[in-house]
Amino acid sequence: MTNSSEDLSSTLADGREITFYSLPGNTVRPVEDVRPLPPRPHTTPSEVRYDRATGDWVAIAALRQDRTYKPPADLCPLCPSPGGDSSEVPAADYDVVVFENRFPSLSGAGSSAPELPTPSSAEPTSAPGIGRCEVICFSSDHTTSFAELPVAHARLVVGVWRTRTEALLATDGIEQVFCFENRGEEIGVTLSHPHGQIYGYPYLTPRTTSMLGRAEAYEQRHPGENLFARILAGEVSDGVRVVASNEHFTAFVPFAARWPVEVHIYPNRHVHNLTQLTDSELDDLTSIYLDTLQRFDQLYSTPLPYISALHQYRPDSVQRHGHFHIELMSVRRSATKLKYLAGSESAMDAFITDVTPEAMAASLRSAAQPTADGNARSGL
Amino acid sequence: MTNSSEDLSSTLADGREITFYSLPGNTVRPVEDVRPLPPRPHTTPSEVRYDRATGDWVAIAALRQDRTYKPPADLCPLCPSPGGDSSEVPAADYDVVVFENRFPSLSGAGSSAPELPTPSSAEPTSAPGIGRCEVICFSSDHTTSFAELPVAHARLVVGVWRTRTEALLATDGIEQVFCFENRGEEIGVTLSHPHGQIYGYPYLTPRTTSMLGRAEAYEQRHPGENLFARILAGEVSDGVRVVASNEHFTAFVPFAARWPVEVHIYPNRHVHNLTQLTDSELDDLTSIYLDTLQRFDQLYSTPLPYISALHQYRPDSVQRHGHFHIELMSVRRSATKLKYLAGSESAMDAFITDVTPEAMAASLRSAAQPTADGNARSGL
Repeated sequence: MTNSSEDLSSTLADGREITFYSLPGNTVRPVEDVRPLPPRPHTTPSEVRYDRATGDWVAIAALRQDRTYKPPADLCPLCPSPGGDSSEVPAADYDVVVFENRFPSLSGAGSSAPELPTPSSAEPTSAPGIGRCEVICFSSDHTTSFAELPVAHARLVVGVWRTRTEALLATDGIEQVFCFENRGEEIGVTLSHPHGQIYGYPYLTPRTTSMLGRAEAYEQRHPGENLFARILAGEVSDGVRVVASNEHFTAFVPFAARWPVEVHIYPNRHVHNLTQLTDSELDDLTSIYLDTLQRFDQLYSTPLPYISALHQYRPDSVQRHGHFHIELMSVRRSATKLKYLAGSESAMDAFITDVTPEAMAASLRSAAQPTADGNARSGL
Repeated sequence: MTNSSEDLSSTLADGREITFYSLPGNTVRPVEDVRPLPPRPHTTPSEVRYDRATGDWVAIAALRQDRTYKPPADLCPLCPSPGGDSSEVPAADYDVVVFENRFPSLSGAGSSAPELPTPSSAEPTSAPGIGRCEVICFSSDHTTSFAELPVAHARLVVGVWRTRTEALLATDGIEQVFCFENRGEEIGVTLSHPHGQIYGYPYLTPRTTSMLGRAEAYEQRHPGENLFARILAGEVSDGVRVVASNEHFTAFVPFAARWPVEVHIYPNRHVHNLTQLTDSELDDLTSIYLDTLQRFDQLYSTPLPYISALHQYRPDSVQRHGHFHIELMSVRRSATKLKYLAGSESAMDAFITDVTPEAMAASLRSAAQPTADGNARSGL
């Protein structure tokens, strides 16, 4: 399904894993990574600490202070390195590639990973920053974007997300797998090459914990029902905030959107994560995801900075009510202005937005013309 | 205490309240605000919506799209307006002034304010955006900053925070009073004149709700104890993260800091909000607050952008475990770099920081020299 027969794994100069994923018919021939990289530490250099005041874990990764910061294009660490000496990707070309982050916030997940301690409410609790941080390059083309990928190429990325999710969910020390993309210098992206990241956290993230808590409370009040299915049914029935839909997925601006541009993409049936989706559903996800990103870039005269966040859950007792979905958000509040997270948002988590969800949904609906068959880019 | 005998209230051209607070011996003579301002809407133009997926309220204030954005200094709406025609403050000069925000995210609190509805988990819940948004100008000097205020002037601001907290806690439709300052263009501040804001929310903010939940759980496990008192005692005992202290207050970098620069200032005894502090305690708060801000500005060659957030609680049954404190945070992670809230933080609330709390505490401790009496600026 994800061309797994063609996956090709190798090792970078400092021992990090790298895997190439290719489109049908393409072949990648990795070369040796000949860079004189310093050896990686034997244990994770980062730390996680429990905040007793909020119940949230925080990661402290001092090593990241020195990470690569806006290199010139000819030194891009994500472009192909035909001689094995100029970037993180030792090959003449590639379609999609995944490798361990050289400056990981979390690392060391695997068979010998220590378990996260149960936090104390009376004393400070800290632990090694166990987990996994991967980089996923969406294309070898430095100047393209996810929205501009051909459908088959985007479908390959979605398949790689699925493959990596399956692998990391099976890795000791990882509780939650988070595939995401930060796009745009406006939100601090230090490398412009089109890429995303995949985090394996040793804990459930605070937002996930919060959402699972609401879903659990909902199910207790409405036995057998699912909160997210209810929200989706309401959005479909109302329609005013729906941006796009196809057989298996619906994209809508949420009723209580926190960001000036915010779209949630829900599967129409209950699944916990990408590994539970069929091929046909993955096709539809690719289609509606590309459609949404293309609408984003048509909102203003410049490409939209955005964060794309895949919410995935384990089908276990704690996370069983979790409903896989993608949340996309942008800080751009007009052609010339950005929304900053200031006192109300940053200090109190109390969001105030300047754009009504219904107005943004209308803008996004009119931002793309349907194709001749009346259905924007459904032709997978 | 806050020179209340000298408070002078007036009304702006569109009916908004404005109150002048003066240093002893100073007199303000407001003039008429002669600007042809459009009338304010009779009902609040904003809306609050309940996010069923997280349990958080979100405010939608579309009117704020058109708010004043980085005006030139000679058009600053916070500078004095001697002729009553050039700014929001119709007077030849002032010390501290508070007025209702012309572009409020929340408004209409008072005797006829409707109550916030109990949210439904099954259906969308929305309500008028009842509340209060005030601007507090710290000084008439356009180019100064809070850190540069003379002690007596800073003490006046602290007293005004206290006075406004007392007034807004007694106002129908307001559940939580939040005094805060956003400082620096780096965090989106659109007016450089030194000022803060005071919000009266109709709900408890998400972070407050989260902290109260932890404090409640702590008290159930440790009857008669307070979580925040416990955290404070641990920080004082450990000492490694303490930045400054005086008789009544302690400033420390929290054990699980989320921001590269983060300092919490706690009173040494349990109080819920500013109104419960004695004059002597308000003096000490002023002293340690100025000291902390001055250390901030000595960290780098440029003034530090920061958010200052006053966490205040009602002494009622729901909020009784809340411990008044100030949380200060900055996005500056080095002399040349900012921390951006990207995928992990913005989408999952999972913070990753590049600076250890202990290293930042050491930097802040060495950032200011004590005065001759060995106690930085305690001479109130």
